[in-house]
Amino acid sequence: MLEELRKQVLEANLELVRTGLVLYTFGNASGISRNEGLVAIKPSGVPYEKLTPAHMVVTDLSGKVVEGNLRPSSDMATHLELYKHFPNIGGVAHTHSDFATAWAQAERPIPCFGTTHADYFHGAVPVTERLKASEIAGDYEQETGTAICRTFAKLDPDAIPAVLVAGHAPFCWGASPAEAAHNAVILEYVAKMALHTLSINAESRPLARELHDKHFLRKHGRDAYYGQVKTK
Amino acid sequence: MLEELRKQVLEANLELVRTGLVLYTFGNASGISRNEGLVAIKPSGVPYEKLTPAHMVVTDLSGKVVEGNLRPSSDMATHLELYKHFPNIGGVAHTHSDFATAWAQAERPIPCFGTTHADYFHGAVPVTERLKASEIAGDYEQETGTAICRTFAKLDPDAIPAVLVAGHAPFCWGASPAEAAHNAVILEYVAKMALHTLSINAESRPLARELHDKHFLRKHGRDAYYGQVKTK
Amino acid sequence: MLEELRKQVLEANLELVRTGLVLYTFGNASGISRNEGLVAIKPSGVPYEKLTPAHMVVTDLSGKVVEGNLRPSSDMATHLELYKHFPNIGGVAHTHSDFATAWAQAERPIPCFGTTHADYFHGAVPVTERLKASEIAGDYEQETGTAICRTFAKLDPDAIPAVLVAGHAPFCWGASPAEAAHNAVILEYVAKMALHTLSINAESRPLARELHDKHFLRKHGRDAYYGQVKTK
Amino acid sequence: MLEELRKQVLEANLELVRTGLVLYTFGNASGISRNEGLVAIKPSGVPYEKLTPAHMVVTDLSGKVVEGNLRPSSDMATHLELYKHFPNIGGVAHTHSDFATAWAQAERPIPCFGTTHADYFHGAVPVTERLKASEIAGDYEQETGTAICRTFAKLDPDAIPAVLVAGHAPFCWGASPAEAAHNAVILEYVAKMALHTLSINAESRPLARELHDKHFLRKHGRDAYYGQVKTK
Repeated sequence: MLEELRKQVLEANLELVRTGLVLYTFGNASGISRNEGLVAIKPSGVPYEKLTPAHMVVTDLSGKVVEGNLRPSSDMATHLELYKHFPNIGGVAHTHSDFATAWAQAERPIPCFGTTHADYFHGAVPVTERLKASEIAGDYEQETGTAICRTFAKLDPDAIPAVLVAGHAPFCWGASPAEAAHNAVILEYVAKMALHTLSINAESRPLARELHDKHFLRKHGRDAYYGQVKTK
Repeated sequence: MLEELRKQVLEANLELVRTGLVLYTFGNASGISRNEGLVAIKPSGVPYEKLTPAHMVVTDLSGKVVEGNLRPSSDMATHLELYKHFPNIGGVAHTHSDFATAWAQAERPIPCFGTTHADYFHGAVPVTERLKASEIAGDYEQETGTAICRTFAKLDPDAIPAVLVAGHAPFCWGASPAEAAHNAVILEYVAKMALHTLSINAESRPLARELHDKHFLRKHGRDAYYGQVKTK
Repeated sequence: MLEELRKQVLEANLELVRTGLVLYTFGNASGISRNEGLVAIKPSGVPYEKLTPAHMVVTDLSGKVVEGNLRPSSDMATHLELYKHFPNIGGVAHTHSDFATAWAQAERPIPCFGTTHADYFHGAVPVTERLKASEIAGDYEQETGTAICRTFAKLDPDAIPAVLVAGHAPFCWGASPAEAAHNAVILEYVAKMALHTLSINAESRPLARELHDKHFLRKHGRDAYYGQVKTK
Repeated sequence: MLEELRKQVLEANLELVRTGLVLYTFGNASGISRNEGLVAIKPSGVPYEKLTPAHMVVTDLSGKVVEGNLRPSSDMATHLELYKHFPNIGGVAHTHSDFATAWAQAERPIPCFGTTHADYFHGAVPVTERLKASEIAGDYEQETGTAICRTFAKLDPDAIPAVLVAGHAPFCWGASPAEAAHNAVILEYVAKMALHTLSINAESRPLARELHDKHFLRKHGRDAYYGQVKTK
C-alpha cells in the first residue's frame, strides 16, 4: 500500500540526515496521497540507519494508523494539520536544524537578506506566536499545526514553504516529500547566512521587493527560466 | 570482571569521539555497577584508537584501582563524587566540547530556549561557583565533584543530567554510560543553539514553563509517549 | 570543440563542490578561449554528480549557444560582461558560499585584516551598489555584470579578483577557471576570518598598507618569491 | 641525512592538514637537529598530497640550503629566528587556522578562560606589535621572528608555546615537530572557544591564577600526574 510514497518519504528523511540537519532522531518527514487521503510518516524514535520503506507508518487524515506496527512520529498531528489546510502541498519536513531552530528560539522571522532566500521563500520566513497554556495542555501537536495555519492567515504557503514555530523549530513543506526536505536544507542555509549577515552589520536591510520578486519568479511560476525545465 | 560494563564504558567513550565532542584525549566516560560498588573508567591520556574494553580501569568508590595496569582518568575523583551523591545514575561523561565549554567559561547557565533543550533538561543547565584557592590546592578533582553536588542542592540530577563547571567544562550523566554520552551530545547541540539564539536576539526569552514541562514529560516519566517504548 | 577548456571548466565547478562552497546547484564556473571568443560554462540546474565535460555549454560573447543542448547557467550574462570588460581574465566563478554571501548581504566590503587576505586581494573586496528597479526589470543578469564593472571603475580587477554583489553573492575571477575557483575558496576563508575578527574586536584595524603590499607582491608580480615557480 | 627528522617534519605538516588547520598550502612545520645545527622544513607552495620526507628542505641556521632541490617555505627565516632564541624547542608550526588567525587579526591576546587553555599555555597567548614599515621593507620574515622574540622578552616560551603575529597568524612550537603541530591544533580549539565565550558573556573573567597553575602543572613539570607517563 502506497509503496512509492513510502519510498519517497524514507528518502526525504534520509536526505535530512545526509545534509546534517538531523541529530539522532530529531526530525521527521512525511508525504500525502491526496487521492486516497492517506499520509506516510516516519515512525517515532527509530534510528535512521534501521529504517526501510516498510517502517513508514500510514495514517488517515484523522491520525488513525491504517498500516504499520510502529507508532508514528510524535509530531504527526502537526503534519496532518498542514495537509488539511494547505491543499497544494504533498510533503512536510520537520527538523531541529541548528540555525533555523535558533531563529525559532529567538522568535524572530528570518528577513530576506539576499537572493538565496528569494529563490525559495517569497517573503520573510514567519514565526508563530507562542502557544497558550491551554493549547499546550490540550492536543499540543495539533495546536502547533493550528498556530502555523494562523500565521499563514494572510500569507501564501505555496510561496513561503516554511515556518518557525516559536521556541520549537522549523516546519517546511513542498509539492513532494523530496521538495519539503529540500526546502528544509535551504532554510537552514538561509538561516545561517542571515545570522552572519546581522553579525557583520546589525543594520542590514532586506532585499528590495523588486529583486525579491525577480529571483523568486526566475525559479517559480509561468515564466521561470532557471534550470533545464520548469520547476513547477 | 565487569566485562559488560567495560564494553559499555568503552562504547560511550567512542561515541564522544564519533560525534566530534572530543579533541585528542580531552574527555572521559565511566559507568558504575551499583551491586558491586565498582566503577569502570577510561585510562588517562591513552589515544582513543588504541582503547579496548580491557584498558578500562576498574576502581572502587574510594578510587582504589581493583583491576587494570593503567592510571585512571585524572578526572576520576569527580566521577566518583557524582556516583556517591546521585544514587540513580549509572554513567558519567565529561568532555571539553566547544560550545558547552564556552558557556562554562562564560560562567552562565544555559537557559532553556526551546523544546530541544526541554526534551532532555528540565530547567536551565546550571553552572557551578568557582572553586576557592583552598579547594584547588586540596583534592582538586574531588572538590570539583563536591562543587557540582552543591550546585544541585536544590535541583534534581535525574531531571537535569548535566552541569557546567565554571572555567572548566561540562559533566553529564544518565542511567547508563550510553545515556551519559548521549546527554553530552545533546548538551553540546543545545549549547550551540543557545549561543546562536542570543546572537539573533539578545533579549530572547526562555520557554514558558508549561511548554518546558510538556516536552520533558513527553519523553520522560510515566506518561511518556515519544518513541516506540518508554525511555525510562 | 574546446575540449580542454570544457575539462578545465568542469574541474573548476567540481572544486567548488569539493571545498564545500556550493549547496545543491548554487554556483557556476566558466572559462574563456580568448582566441576564439568562446566561453564554456556549466549548464543551469544540473546536479554536479552528473556533469561531464560534454555537458558544458559553449557560447559566444553575445550569449548565443554555439554548442551544447542544455541551457547555460542563468548567470551567464554576468560572466560574459566580466569577460568583455576585464581583458586579462580567463575564468569566472560564482558561488553563494556562506560567509562571503553574508558580507554581500550586509553590503559591506571585506576589509583587509590580515596577510591571508593580502596574499590574494590587493585591497578590500568591494561591494556593488544595489541595482535600480529598472535594471532588475531589464536584462537583470547583464546589469549585474555592469554593476560589477562600475564598481571596478577605479580598481584593478587583476589585483582584486573578487567582488560582492549587494544582496546576492560573490563573483571571483582569475587567469584560468582553476584560478577563479581557487580565489572563490580563498575569499570564503577570508570572509569567515574577517567576521570572526570583528566579533573579537569591533575596532579591528585593516593591515598597514606596507604589509598589504609586501604580501601581495610576495606572491604576485615580477619579484614574487612564494612557491617553487612564479605564480604569474 | 636527517632521515628521521624529515619524517617527523613531514608527519607534523600532515597532522596540520588532517586536523583541518591548513587550507591549500597555508602552513608549514619544521624541526631542528640541535646536535648538527640543521633544520628540516616544508618546501614552499607544494601541495601536501605530493610531499614525501625527501621533499623536506634542510638548511643551516643561517638559512643556507644544505640539502634539497626545492625552495624552503617562505616563512623559514621566522622559524630560524625562533630556533636561535628559544633554546629548548625542537619544532615550529605555522598555520593560518581560522580562529587563531582571527585573534591575530584583531590584535588581541587570547585570555585564559578555562582549563583547556591552562593545560597547554601558562598565561594568555600574546600578540606581537605591528611591524614597522622599515621592518617590512627589510628582511621581513626574519623581522617577524624578531618581533616574536621581543614579545617573549618577559615571557617563558616553554610555558607559553604559541604567539599571534599581529595581522598575520599564529606560530607555535614545542619539544618536537609533533608537539609543535599538536600545540597548533590546541591553540585553534582554545581560540574558537574563547571567541564563543566572549559572545556569550562579554565580561567573561580569566581563570583564577591558582586554577591556571593547577592545570598547567597537572600536565607539565615535575609533579605532573596526567596521562600514563610524564609528558616532559
